[in-house]
Parts: sequence; C-alpha cells; structure tokens
Amino acid sequence: MTPPRIDALQYANWSEKIFRQMRTGGVDAVHVTIAYHESFRETVLNIEAWNRWFERFPDLIFQGFTADDIELAQMTGRTAIFFGAQNPSCIEDDIGLVEVLHRLGLRFMQLTYNNQSLLAAGCYEAEDTGLTRMGREVVAEMNRVGMVVDMSHSGERSTLDAIAQSTRPIAITHANPASWHPARRNKSDRVLRALAESGGMLGFSVYPHHLRGGSDCSLNDFCQMVARTADLMGVGRIGIGTDLCQDQPDRVVDWMRTGRWTKARDYGEGSAENPGFPPMPDWFRDNRDFGQVAAGLRKAGLSADDVAAVMGGNWARFFADSFGPAQTRQKEAAQ
Amino acid sequence: MTPPRIDALQYANWSEKIFRQMRTGGVDAVHVTIAYHESFRETVLNIEAWNRWFERFPDLIFQGFTADDIELAQMTGRTAIFFGAQNPSCIEDDIGLVEVLHRLGLRFMQLTYNNQSLLAAGCYEAEDTGLTRMGREVVAEMNRVGMVVDMSHSGERSTLDAIAQSTRPIAITHANPASWHPARRNKSDRVLRALAESGGMLGFSVYPHHLRGGSDCSLNDFCQMVARTADLMGVGRIGIGTDLCQDQPDRVVDWMRTGRWTKARDYGEGSAENPGFPPMPDWFRDNRDFGQVAAGLRKAGLSADDVAAVMGGNWARFFADSFGPAQTRQKEAAQ
Repeated sequence: MTPPRIDALQYANWSEKIFRQMRTGGVDAVHVTIAYHESFRETVLNIEAWNRWFERFPDLIFQGFTADDIELAQMTGRTAIFFGAQNPSCIEDDIGLVEVLHRLGLRFMQLTYNNQSLLAAGCYEAEDTGLTRMGREVVAEMNRVGMVVDMSHSGERSTLDAIAQSTRPIAITHANPASWHPARRNKSDRVLRALAESGGMLGFSVYPHHLRGGSDCSLNDFCQMVARTADLMGVGRIGIGTDLCQDQPDRVVDWMRTGRWTKARDYGEGSAENPGFPPMPDWFRDNRDFGQVAAGLRKAGLSADDVAAVMGGNWARFFADSFGPAQTRQKEAAQ
Repeated sequence: MTPPRIDALQYANWSEKIFRQMRTGGVDAVHVTIAYHESFRETVLNIEAWNRWFERFPDLIFQGFTADDIELAQMTGRTAIFFGAQNPSCIEDDIGLVEVLHRLGLRFMQLTYNNQSLLAAGCYEAEDTGLTRMGREVVAEMNRVGMVVDMSHSGERSTLDAIAQSTRPIAITHANPASWHPARRNKSDRVLRALAESGGMLGFSVYPHHLRGGSDCSLNDFCQMVARTADLMGVGRIGIGTDLCQDQPDRVVDWMRTGRWTKARDYGEGSAENPGFPPMPDWFRDNRDFGQVAAGLRKAGLSADDVAAVMGGNWARFFADSFGPAQTRQKEAAQ
C-alpha cells in the first residue's frame, strides 16, 4: 500500500465538485470541521447534513471512524472524512457530550477558538488562563475516549498547558511557525518543541494569513519552512493541515470570527480593508494541488520517504494512536 | 454456544443490584428503554447516564450495537444492553435524527406511545390515523439504517399499516394477545397473524396490566398462553419482553402516562384506585426469575429447543436480521 495522502483540516462549502477534486488530488483522508460556534444540537444538524452527503456520494466519500478507514479509502478509491470541531461549544457545559460526540465520529476538538472558552484561552485573549477546571476534566475525558486535543487557535500558555496535561499526544492541526511568519495564529518554537517532544503533530496551513507574504507566498518559501520545521520538530511530527475553505462565501468567515459572541464586527486575521477570505496561493487552489506540494517538498530537499511521511504517513500513524480508547481501558471500552 | 437468554423490554431504576441480578438470571441481552417523552437533547442526557453505567460496571454490562454483541456477552459473562425509545419524541420533527440515534445505538423505536404522535396513532386514541406522511418517511429511514419499528403502544390500524409499509419485519416488543386478556395494550389475533406472516416478533409481557388476573396471574396460565400463541404465530415469531420496571418510584409511571401532554392526571392502564406500578407476579420478581419462566414453558408442553428459541434464540436471530443497514445498501453503508 502506498503511503496515504491526508489533509488534517478543511472547511469547504462541500459539493460533489470538491469531493471529486479530492479524488483527483489523491486525498485519502480529510479532517473536516463540522462546527465552529455551534451548540450540540446545531452540531448534530451539521452531522445530519454530512450523513446526506455520505448517502448521496458513497462512491466518493464515507465517514471515517478509525485509522483503518484510511486504508479502506485507499483500497476503494474514496476519501475518508473524519469529523472535528474548532471550538468546544459543541459540548456546551456537559462533559458527557465528549463520549456522545466521539460515538458520532468526532475525532478532534479544539479547546478554544480565538476567545476564552469554558476550557481554555484563545490566541486573541489578552489574558491566557491556561486550562480551566473544566478544561482539565475534558482533556482527561478526551484522552479516555480517543478524541484529539487540537490547540490550533489557542493561546501560548493554554497550549503548553494542554501538552503537559494531556496523557496522549495532542495536535495543532493547522498553523505554521511564528518564527517564519509572526501571525497571531502561528506557533512559537517553544510550543513546537514541546509539541514534538510529547509526540504531538503540527499540520502546516496554506491559509494565506498564516503564510509569509500571504497569498503571494511562493511554494518554495513554504516548502523551505517545512524543511526547517522538520529539523526543529523531527520529520515524524509534521503533516499538512491546509485550512482550505474552498467556495465559502465571506459571511462564513464572519461566522468563524464572531459567532454569537459580539454584535460588532471582528476582523480576526483580516482587516477592514480585507475582511473576507483571502485568495489562495496559486500553487494551492484546492484538493487537486496536493501533488504540487509533494513535488515542492522533494525539491526543498526532503527525501522521498520524508515527503510521503509529511504528506500523510505521519497523520496516519497519529490517527491510529489517537482515535481508540486509552490503552488502560481498551479491554472494556472496545466492546 | 448455548442459546442466549434475551429480554426485549425493561425500564428499571438501574443499579448495580439489577445488573448483578441480570447475571444471576443468565440474561445475555436486554433491550432497555432510554426514553419515553424525552426530546432529543434529553434522550442524549439519558445516553450519557448509560455511558456512566457502562464505565462503572464494565464487568457486568456493556452497550450492544450488533447481534454479535450477544455472543460477546455470553463469552465474557456480561449483559449486552441495547437501547430503544418508546416514543418518537426523541427524533422530534427531524428525520435526520433517526440515523444519528442509530449511530448512538438506538435499535428500537416505537412510532407512538398511547397517543397520536407525528408518525402514527397510539392505542388510546379514539381515531387511528394509521401512518402519517412523516410516519411513512421515518419507517423507510428506520428500514434503511437498521432501527426496529416497535408498535407495542400503537393503535390497531397504525400497527397493521406499519407491518404493511415496513420493508423489514417489525416488532411488538412487549404485549400479549388480547384474546387471552383484552387489555387496551394487548394485540388482536389479526395483528398477531399479520406480524407473524411478515416475519415480525412478539415479546410476551409480564407487566401485570397485560396479564389475565393481573398480579395474581399464574405462571401456568401465562405459559399456556405462550404455547397457544406459538400455535397462532409460529414458535419462531415469539420471545420475551417482560416490561420489567423494577424499583421505579410511582412518579415514573406518571411520567410514562402523561409526559408533558396534559396537566391533568391520566391513569393509563391503572386507575384512581391503583394509580401506581402494580406488584409483579410472584413467579417473576426480577431478572433472577427467567429460569422459572423457562421451566414453566417446558411444563406447558414446549420442547427444549422451542423453550430456548422463545427465551432468546428467536430474538437473537431477529436482532441479527434487523440491526444492520438494509441489504441493498449494505455495501456503502457498512463503511
């Protein structure tokens, strides 16, 4: 079996076209965002919408629950869709919803999205609380059932806290090193080192606000950054998490940024001059362009094996280690 | 493997004591009610409560999802717990919740509980609509995903309609023949014949209101009734569905009967003189007494093989045929 190609973050305006582009790009598995600020019931409505996609396009996509589904996707020429939430609003104030949503297939949950949540602090808050009381409990519950703690939009202290508190490796599914491009969402070397040392994973984002030079960032600059991060973290600790928001109208980026927490407008990574989604770099328009990234990484000096690891092999191993119940409870929980 | 012992309906005030009594009684699988009039969110809270039971008592119980879990229960000396709802309030007005609740393990759903629902008419309504527009859609969806249509509390016409409309055999998990005891909840021979001819199953109830003579009904009278029903329906179409409501306070029977649909009091099968739960017959106090029922059936003339079939073998076969996706869609849905 050739190593799989995996994208650890997309939130597109889903359509048959996009599912076909996944096939064209050879994408075997994608972690898709199913909720930002949604309540539990609203998240379930989003799952229902996905169930309709799965029913309509069984030859293109199916829901992934375990890492074995990556191999199934490869064998059947389809893309396995793994669910994640960018915010813990989907569990409301109820820790029991962690197990319920895991049963429904939620495999990643961010502890916070830019703002303070019930669990931790986001990267836009002036004060970073670290993990809250509930945050520590929820991390333990996520560890137990096999839901990945994702700190992509979290503050520095909260992220370090999550890495330390979690008994299983965590992920930053979509961000880049701040040393390359000092965006609020990108991560310090301190975080990246701690993440790597704990067995966690970083997914490199191609969302223009996370790129040096924005939409004009070159493929070569991006791939050189990946190569340097491989030196920092180890080539086994990195993968791709494009943050592709294909075909989304600008009202969606407003929802991401402001949800229901303000009546005012918040531009997040954008600005009054550039309030909408930025244009993607020309070397990554959509799922069809994963091959270009792979070629770019090879050109930047990564070996063929290392390119395969970064393009999906590492995420496949991480999925296998992360999506099942914690080892100590595996006997009973596997029932 | 000896044939399993299965109870197709219980709604107890769950406790370690009851789970241990299941083991004492050799009960390998139980269909438990997780919701009467609960909304979706309330049903999920009940699932969360069950998840805590599963976490606390992994050596006694675990959640069953497929018929294979019956065998797993036998091999590991535990009881497999299968979820069901006595009313479709848990899907609210949203057909997408059928698949979501199936994923969470809901394997049975009654289309109506005594009253008119969005799907069909209950056995206490003066007018029986048969299946409604939504009722027909939901039955098709239940057929697709593998959730059993249960008509235990439904009206005659609705029940016949469900038998005719459903493309997969349905169940009456807990009721007795009206020809034996003409309670509103017991079923006409016409219904029982149609049920049997379509491959459906009847579970015999030992809830006193469904018994001739109530709490004083003798084991022999009950078992003779089972033997006669075997002649009517075929011995392969019958099983046990005790309707055991062990240790429940009387406020629970009020909730079952009135939910939130009336401000007045409705006595259902009870009366102003006997508003609470009736005492169980002395030959079936709780899960420990399944052996007595088996012995009674043997005494009533059933062969050893037929007793084994009635005590669980038939339900095991029915579970195997019912809980997976419909055959025509099995290839894609099994992913």
